[in-house]
Amino acid sequence: MLSPAYLAVAGALLLALGPPLPAFAGRPIITGKPAPSEAAATARWLTAQNTWGVLSTISSDLSGAPFGNVVSYSDGVPGESHGIPYFYLTMLDPTARDALKDQRTSFTLSEFPLGTCGKIDPENPTCAKLTLTGKLKLVDLQSSEADLAKSALFTKHPEMKDWPKNHHFQIFKLEIENIFLIDWFGGPKPISPTEYLEYGKNQVLLKLS
Amino acid sequence: MLSPAYLAVAGALLLALGPPLPAFAGRPIITGKPAPSEAAATARWLTAQNTWGVLSTISSDLSGAPFGNVVSYSDGVPGESHGIPYFYLTMLDPTARDALKDQRTSFTLSEFPLGTCGKIDPENPTCAKLTLTGKLKLVDLQSSEADLAKSALFTKHPEMKDWPKNHHFQIFKLEIENIFLIDWFGGPKPISPTEYLEYGKNQVLLKLS
Repeated sequence: MLSPAYLAVAGALLLALGPPLPAFAGRPIITGKPAPSEAAATARWLTAQNTWGVLSTISSDLSGAPFGNVVSYSDGVPGESHGIPYFYLTMLDPTARDALKDQRTSFTLSEFPLGTCGKIDPENPTCAKLTLTGKLKLVDLQSSEADLAKSALFTKHPEMKDWPKNHHFQIFKLEIENIFLIDWFGGPKPISPTEYLEYGKNQVLLKLS
Repeated sequence: MLSPAYLAVAGALLLALGPPLPAFAGRPIITGKPAPSEAAATARWLTAQNTWGVLSTISSDLSGAPFGNVVSYSDGVPGESHGIPYFYLTMLDPTARDALKDQRTSFTLSEFPLGTCGKIDPENPTCAKLTLTGKLKLVDLQSSEADLAKSALFTKHPEMKDWPKNHHFQIFKLEIENIFLIDWFGGPKPISPTEYLEYGKNQVLLKLS
């Protein structure tokens, strides 16, 4: 016979665990954060796990001031991460217009919204931050890269495929030239774009998301 | 006599509700999001509710490219919001160094991490985004403004007061010159810095956070 206390705990556990997790596109299950010594892995993990970030351009509307804008992105279909962030932007938005005039762009991600920083402050160096700097480029819609990017974006952001056609959304990608990662005390970790992009290439699938 | 089933549900509820909520500084309780027609109120709500964002500067390390960095901030002690974001930055970090060479800066916030966008995509215009552009300035540590800023920062980010003294953290503020808010369809809402800063001034306390 099960005691009431046991039943209470079991009931609580069932509620806490909830029903089986649905396969939410764009809400990847958090698998383990890499160790601080694994800089390239940590950077790739941040890119694979997040679904939005801030894209900063040189503003043509604001006489060359930096302009950060909240955007969604994807670096691969869930479970297959490539490291290159793709974006779905309209010329109605200043970021895309800026990039066509001056391609210099940075893309910034935080570990904080993933929930893995716990009670650590978002600015604490152990709550990881990643800034990818490079050139924001249009992807030719007729290319096979565009097919890959669309699939990456639309699986993680299902509503994108229904966004208004007359807004003329286009696919952009960040060609990464510099990587700034802070994931521990002691300043930014040096990671080359090659080291970042090649990470996990020898595995069949990079299971980061 | 209480049935085992009742006890199970009661236990589950107790666990789900958890202990009484502690007064978490920096985790403001989400009070209602203003209506989309209330642009200044929405902008002030986003600033009051968030605790971190992305500060973008003109990078001196990267030959003038824009550089977005994850930072914590506060615009007032919990329950008393003033709209001006204050930051606690060290010269060991590129953002503070950049600002001393070129003050032009933008600060970007998203509604998404507040949890009030639900299943709406972070890039969907109804999931509000705010970019404050202006000049990032050092606050004189001997001023009364510095006392206000320290109190605003340290109540929302309690660990800051224990950050290493030898990192020489200093207080910066954003002097707002331009406001870019998207909180609905139809493009950015025009809000002047005065309209933003004056919002709620006639109330004794601006109860946004």
